[in-house]
Amino acid sequence: MLVVQKFGGSSVANAERIFNVAKRITETYDSGNGVVVILSAQGDTTDELIEKAKEINPNASKREMDMLLSTGEQQSVALMAMALEKMGYNAVSLNAMQVGIATTSVHSNAKIKTIGRERILRELERKNIVVITGFQGINKYDDITTLGRGGSDTSAVAIAAILGADLCEIYTDVDGVYTADPRIVKNAKKLDEIGYSDMAELASLGAKVLHTRSVELAQKYNVELVVRSSLTRDKGTVVKEDYKVEKMLISGVASDKKQAIITIRGIDDQPGRAFEVFSILEKHNISVDIIAQSNGINNTASISFTVEADDKTAALELLKKHSNLIQAKEITSTDGVAKVSIVGAGMATHPGVASLMFEALYDAGANIKMISTSEIKISVVVEEKDVENAIVAIHDKFNLASNSMRKN
Amino acid sequence: MLVVQKFGGSSVANAERIFNVAKRITETYDSGNGVVVILSAQGDTTDELIEKAKEINPNASKREMDMLLSTGEQQSVALMAMALEKMGYNAVSLNAMQVGIATTSVHSNAKIKTIGRERILRELERKNIVVITGFQGINKYDDITTLGRGGSDTSAVAIAAILGADLCEIYTDVDGVYTADPRIVKNAKKLDEIGYSDMAELASLGAKVLHTRSVELAQKYNVELVVRSSLTRDKGTVVKEDYKVEKMLISGVASDKKQAIITIRGIDDQPGRAFEVFSILEKHNISVDIIAQSNGINNTASISFTVEADDKTAALELLKKHSNLIQAKEITSTDGVAKVSIVGAGMATHPGVASLMFEALYDAGANIKMISTSEIKISVVVEEKDVENAIVAIHDKFNLASNSMRKN
Repeated sequence: MLVVQKFGGSSVANAERIFNVAKRITETYDSGNGVVVILSAQGDTTDELIEKAKEINPNASKREMDMLLSTGEQQSVALMAMALEKMGYNAVSLNAMQVGIATTSVHSNAKIKTIGRERILRELERKNIVVITGFQGINKYDDITTLGRGGSDTSAVAIAAILGADLCEIYTDVDGVYTADPRIVKNAKKLDEIGYSDMAELASLGAKVLHTRSVELAQKYNVELVVRSSLTRDKGTVVKEDYKVEKMLISGVASDKKQAIITIRGIDDQPGRAFEVFSILEKHNISVDIIAQSNGINNTASISFTVEADDKTAALELLKKHSNLIQAKEITSTDGVAKVSIVGAGMATHPGVASLMFEALYDAGANIKMISTSEIKISVVVEEKDVENAIVAIHDKFNLASNSMRKN
Repeated sequence: MLVVQKFGGSSVANAERIFNVAKRITETYDSGNGVVVILSAQGDTTDELIEKAKEINPNASKREMDMLLSTGEQQSVALMAMALEKMGYNAVSLNAMQVGIATTSVHSNAKIKTIGRERILRELERKNIVVITGFQGINKYDDITTLGRGGSDTSAVAIAAILGADLCEIYTDVDGVYTADPRIVKNAKKLDEIGYSDMAELASLGAKVLHTRSVELAQKYNVELVVRSSLTRDKGTVVKEDYKVEKMLISGVASDKKQAIITIRGIDDQPGRAFEVFSILEKHNISVDIIAQSNGINNTASISFTVEADDKTAALELLKKHSNLIQAKEITSTDGVAKVSIVGAGMATHPGVASLMFEALYDAGANIKMISTSEIKISVVVEEKDVENAIVAIHDKFNLASNSMRKN
């Protein structure tokens, strides 16, 4: 078997942890598998490098930031190879340039385009354990790019895909994917398996366990993913093709705090107005999440939408600056709101899920400010203070702890 | 003009110093020059990374050490590019892989074979200040190599050579090349110019101001070198073709402490015996410096040679282990000795230099233990305690402070 194993930064934060991970890797190797390891930068290295850069230039170009930050993973992989050598194994560390991880040109948020197989396969043929830098790639100008925070998951899945690996294990500090955050919901249940679609939604809705793009990539190339703990021997959660997963009505509840609502009132109800608003924000890399539009009096409309709380000030300034294009009567904002979502491929063919969720929110005393639905998820925006009660109430209402409520 | 400027690790140790260096660079750029900058790793970064590696594996492979250590320079160049951006200049940092600095395969002590011009020239055409990692290269397997301590000097000279740069400035914490170490000889004189040959000898004899290989390379490709301080505006010392330099009898006095003498007595005076000794040591990477052989009684010989004090124990163990090959009566060692040398292209055609030096050593009360001479240098081994007196006496004897003693 060929196994790809990805370990995060906290798993390699110091010498002791590096050897713990090395033990894990060599067990897999000793069972007769080829092993390719993907690592993030050690512990707080990335944050420390960002601090160092800020001291010199808070507005450093993203190209130079990527040049700086990519050294973190290179240190990790070299140290891991040394630990494996110390344990008597043949190992070789490789960076993105050596492997040939080609990405789009954009810095700090690049997407992987292709990955070279030759170097990795040559090292595997020599029975080396291959340790590769996650999070980074090379663009067509030979410049170093990074995939954005959490991008090492994506590196691991992409490398597993290109190698046709039998398994891609993502090691984290939790032992799998839960029906809700176990720190909030005491009886949250670990899922033995989950479909790609549900996992992708959960990841994009704020469950920190996997990087969204990595799940989409796994689905596209049919890579069998396992999310498991680097601290325990638990089996973890298998992420696989949707039809192979026992369909549950709801896979899980996720939340994303630190949201803000921006409301634009009194816009002329004409085609193109909403487009103006969102194209201005998009040009400045401000992501808009949930959008709701309502008709007001006198042929005017109101548009509300959520952004990351950190982006609120910039968004308001941009909208005011372009007020001549938007021609709104009033622009206001609401802080201290959060998004709570339920996800489940089963809900598409099962009416009544939304009303059950709203009932749970009513039980929890949480006032719904906005609603957004898709075939496999329902998101609501509530006040941040109500988030934990809301999650517990929803988890209870759908009986997620017992898994008794399945789709027929 | 195209100017290559190299700054060492202490010059970029923190944000303040990085901006000091950046100011220096932009002054050169603002005068209408193309500027290529070569940097070492910040301050103690390399030592810290070595410590980190040792904690994991004191015998880590040199390949992985190079992979780890090369991140230090990459951080330096990215931070410098950010500082230049902050000052409103266009800058781009490049690592050895991006430039294409091809070296021999050996790790931790590689030699530069070729350097790609394309990327650097393209960036210069765009009016970018180009900031390149010193100390590192890429071998034919696409693996990262390092040039050994001080190798950034060599990187700078090699890049200046390949670009046909008009000038290569090596910035250090001293303001040039002196006739002797100014900390020892109070009236040591800064040389305005020195020939390549003398500079190469001084560097190899312990003057820390330039890496020996960088001088050899500068001579080979006729690169005009200037050694100057990053702290002052002094002109520094120009290193150039021997015949262009006003010939002084003696260019300088250098010393190298921490030597040890090993003496092998009672070897059969047969061909091949000395070869056995030195081939054993060479195979184990122990450098032998000065060698003296004398004939003893009964057709036996004695060989004395110096090694670095740090290598003494290993050398003695090796010789004892192979005693059957060497068949010596006795192997002894002497600690606490040092090498004092005078260098000068002028001495080749000027008899009496050696006797003048020995007279100075006699004046200083320094007992000569070994002597080695070449066309342009004389080295003696004396007790470490006598080194400073010896240097001062020699410096006086040759009147180096006043430069009045010239070759005709």
